[in-house]
Amino acid sequence: MEKQKRFLLPESELPRQWYNIQADMINKPLPPIHPQTKEPLSADDLAHIFAAECARQELDQTHSWIDIPDEVRERYKAYRSTPLVRAYALEQALGTPAHIYFKNESVNPLGSHKINSALPQCYYCKQEGVTNVTTETGAGQWGAALSYAAKTFGLECAVYQVKISMQQKPYRSSIMRTFGATVEGSPSMSTRAGKDIITRDPHHPGSLGTAISEAIELATTTPNCKYTLGSVLNHVSLHQTVIGLEAEKQMEMAGEYPDTIIACFGGGSNFGGLAFPFMRHQLQKGNGKSSNGKWIDFIAAEPSSCPKLTKGKFEYDFGDSAGYTPLLPMFTLGHDFKPANIHAGGLRYHGAGTIVSQLLKDGYMRGVDIPQTESFKAGLLFAQTEGIIPAPESGHAIAATIREALACKKTGEEKVILFNLSGHGLIDMTAYDSFLNGDLTDPVYEG
Amino acid sequence: MEKQKRFLLPESELPRQWYNIQADMINKPLPPIHPQTKEPLSADDLAHIFAAECARQELDQTHSWIDIPDEVRERYKAYRSTPLVRAYALEQALGTPAHIYFKNESVNPLGSHKINSALPQCYYCKQEGVTNVTTETGAGQWGAALSYAAKTFGLECAVYQVKISMQQKPYRSSIMRTFGATVEGSPSMSTRAGKDIITRDPHHPGSLGTAISEAIELATTTPNCKYTLGSVLNHVSLHQTVIGLEAEKQMEMAGEYPDTIIACFGGGSNFGGLAFPFMRHQLQKGNGKSSNGKWIDFIAAEPSSCPKLTKGKFEYDFGDSAGYTPLLPMFTLGHDFKPANIHAGGLRYHGAGTIVSQLLKDGYMRGVDIPQTESFKAGLLFAQTEGIIPAPESGHAIAATIREALACKKTGEEKVILFNLSGHGLIDMTAYDSFLNGDLTDPVYEG
Repeated sequence: MEKQKRFLLPESELPRQWYNIQADMINKPLPPIHPQTKEPLSADDLAHIFAAECARQELDQTHSWIDIPDEVRERYKAYRSTPLVRAYALEQALGTPAHIYFKNESVNPLGSHKINSALPQCYYCKQEGVTNVTTETGAGQWGAALSYAAKTFGLECAVYQVKISMQQKPYRSSIMRTFGATVEGSPSMSTRAGKDIITRDPHHPGSLGTAISEAIELATTTPNCKYTLGSVLNHVSLHQTVIGLEAEKQMEMAGEYPDTIIACFGGGSNFGGLAFPFMRHQLQKGNGKSSNGKWIDFIAAEPSSCPKLTKGKFEYDFGDSAGYTPLLPMFTLGHDFKPANIHAGGLRYHGAGTIVSQLLKDGYMRGVDIPQTESFKAGLLFAQTEGIIPAPESGHAIAATIREALACKKTGEEKVILFNLSGHGLIDMTAYDSFLNGDLTDPVYEG
Repeated sequence: MEKQKRFLLPESELPRQWYNIQADMINKPLPPIHPQTKEPLSADDLAHIFAAECARQELDQTHSWIDIPDEVRERYKAYRSTPLVRAYALEQALGTPAHIYFKNESVNPLGSHKINSALPQCYYCKQEGVTNVTTETGAGQWGAALSYAAKTFGLECAVYQVKISMQQKPYRSSIMRTFGATVEGSPSMSTRAGKDIITRDPHHPGSLGTAISEAIELATTTPNCKYTLGSVLNHVSLHQTVIGLEAEKQMEMAGEYPDTIIACFGGGSNFGGLAFPFMRHQLQKGNGKSSNGKWIDFIAAEPSSCPKLTKGKFEYDFGDSAGYTPLLPMFTLGHDFKPANIHAGGLRYHGAGTIVSQLLKDGYMRGVDIPQTESFKAGLLFAQTEGIIPAPESGHAIAATIREALACKKTGEEKVILFNLSGHGLIDMTAYDSFLNGDLTDPVYEG
C-alpha cells in the first residue's frame, strides 16, 4: 500500500461559508471602544475606515457561519484547496514517532495565506463603490496580496511598508508595484503621523504600528478610500478560516485528527484561520476531543523579542503607534513598543487580536516564544527535508513543531501535529544568507 | 453549474512511467559522435560523465516507456500532480474566444519544472555509488532544483552559475547555498576552461555554454563525481514527460483537447516534457488528431536574441563553449555564440536538443521568436490577471500564447491552447523592476 503524502479537496468541496468563532465563544470578546468617550463602537462607527460589510462582520457575535460571496469563491478556486501535506521527510530527519502534517499556504498566489482575506476585503470595497484601498504591511506578504486583490477588482492601492522590512526584502515592493500598487516606506514624510514619528526618532525602523497609523490617516483624508488590515481584526481571522475548514476535511482524508495545532503569531489571522474551525468543537462542549481523548493543544508561536502572548498585559490599547485606531481589548506590549529588527517582519506587532486575546485569557490556547536563530535553524531543516524554503514567520511555527516532535521522541508518543506553513521565504533570502553566514542575532525582550 | 478552474490528479493516477519519444520517432535522432574519431558514442562512453542509467536512457531508441523508480515517484508525490488551470481571467482580459489552459509547474519545490529531472538524476547517481554531482545553471532554476535533489539523496553538489544571471538574480545562489550547494560564477578562475575564456574576454558575461564546460571539467577531474544537465539531452526531456502525461489526463478531466501546445525553449526539456506525450499520438500515425480534426500545432517560444530554432543551422556542434562535449546533431547558432544579456537566463543557449532538432526538421513543430519586452509585457498581464508572476523564461510561452489567442479573436476560432508555466519569477523581480521603469531593451540577433 503506497503512502499518500498530499491531500487535496475537489473544487466542489471548497468551503461555502467562513466560520465565525465569536458566535460560539462562551466569553465574548470585549468591544472596541472610542478612545475619548470610552463608548463601545458600532459597525457604523467602524465603517468610516473599513468596508461596511467588514465592519459588520467585525462585531458579529451571532452568526456562526457567514457566506463566502460567489465572486470571492471563484477567485479562491484559482489556488484552493491548498495541499495538506504529511511531512514524512521532516519526521525522519527528527527521528520522531509524531505524525507531522502541514497546511501549505505557501503555494497561494503571492506566496502566503494573506490573499484569503485580501480578496473579500477588496470585493466588499468594490461592491460598496469604494475606488481606493490602503494598508500597512510588514514583510510585505499582506501588501503583495492586497495589491493583487485590488487589481483583480479594479481598485487603486497604496501600501505603507515597514521601512526596515522594505530594506530587508526589496523584492516585495517590486512585487507590489508589478500589481500596480504605490508603495511607501513607513515611517514616511507623507503623513502627519509619519512626520511626527520621524521628528521624535529620525532612525525609527518602522513597525506595523507606525504603518497602520499612516494608512489610516491616508484612508480618512482621501475621498472614497478605505483602510484594510491584514491581521489582528476579527473579520480578517474570519476570512482565514477557509484554511482550517479545508484542513479539517483533509485530516479526515488522511484518517487522523490533530493532537496539536501550531501556527506562527503576529496579529493572529493565520493562527485563527487554522485553529478556530478545530476549536469550535471544543467550544461546542467537548464533542470534538482529539483521537487520544484529549483536547487539542493549540500553540501560537511568537518571536521571543516580541512576546505579547507570554509577557504582554491584557488591557485596552491602541492598534497603532499614533493612536488613531479604536481601543482594543488585547494582550499587548504597549502601542509604542518598538520591536527589534528581526527578519520575521509579519510578527513585529505589539498586540494580539481581540478574539485570540480572550481565548488565551480563558485557557483555550497557549503561546510559546521562539528566538530568531531557532526559527531559522528550523526553517533550514524544513527546507532541506521538504524542499520548501519557509517564510521567516512560518519558521516560528516549524520551530514550535520541532520542539513538540522532539518531546514525542522522548516520550514515545505518536502525536499528530498539524502546523500552518503560512508562506514561503523566497523573498527573504537575505535573511537566510545572514543565518548561513552566522550573522543573525537573538534580540531579547526587555519589557 | 459552476465552472471548474483547476484540475488535479489523485496520487494513485500519477504516471508510473516516463514516455520515451525516441522509440516512436520515424526518423530517429542522429547519434552523438566523438569530436576526433567521428564515431558514434555508446552509453558506456557517455557514462564517463553521466550516471550510467542516464547514459543508457539517452541512447534508448527502443522502449517507449521507462519505469519511474519508486524512490523518485515517492518524491514526485510531494508536489505532483501540478495543477492544470483554465486561465479564465487572462482570456477575459484578452477578449479572446480561445480557451487557455496552463500547466502550473511554478508550484513545484524550488519554483520550476527542473526538479522533475533533478530527482531521478541524483537518484541514479546515488544508486551507482556516486558521491558528488556538478552542473551548470543559467537563471538558477536548475541549480536550485539539483541542490535540493542532491541534499535529499545525500550527495555533495557544486554548481557553476552563469555570471550575468548570478548578478541579475542574487537570491538564486542564496537558495542553492540554503540546500548546502557550492556555487561559482561562470566563467570562473577555478577551471582551465573558465580561465581560457576569461583570458580571451575578461568581461565575458558567461552563458550556459561556458558553465557546461566548467562543470564537465570538474566532473572529469574529481573522483566519484558525475555531471548532470538540466535540459538539452534526451534523458532530461524523458524525465520531464511527467508534465505532459499528467496534462493529457487533466485535459480529459476538463473535457477538452488542445489545438495548440506552447512552451518556452532553452534546450528543450520543458517543451518536450509537455509536448512529447501529446505528439506520440501523431507519431503513432494520426490517431490523436485534436478536437477540430487538425493535428496539434506545437510551438516552441525562443528569445528573438537567441533564435536557434528559426535562424540556426542543423549541424553537428558542441554542446558547450570549450568543446568538451560530444558533437550533437542540432539546430545551433554555433557553440561560441555569446547570447545577449536578457533576463531569461534559462533561454540563453546556442543549441536545441537532438530530439527537438529532428522533430523541427521533420515539420512536427515550429519555433517563434519573442522580443524581450514582449515577454515581460505578457508576463505582467498574466500576473495581473492570474496572480502568478511568471519566470522571464515562461514569459516567452505566455507571449506566444497571447499572439495565438489574439489571432483567434480576429478569426473567431475557439481554439484550445495549452501552455507550460515552467516557473515563477519571484527571484527575477529586478527584471520586472527594469521593465516597469522602461529600462529593458530588445537585443537583436546579428547572426
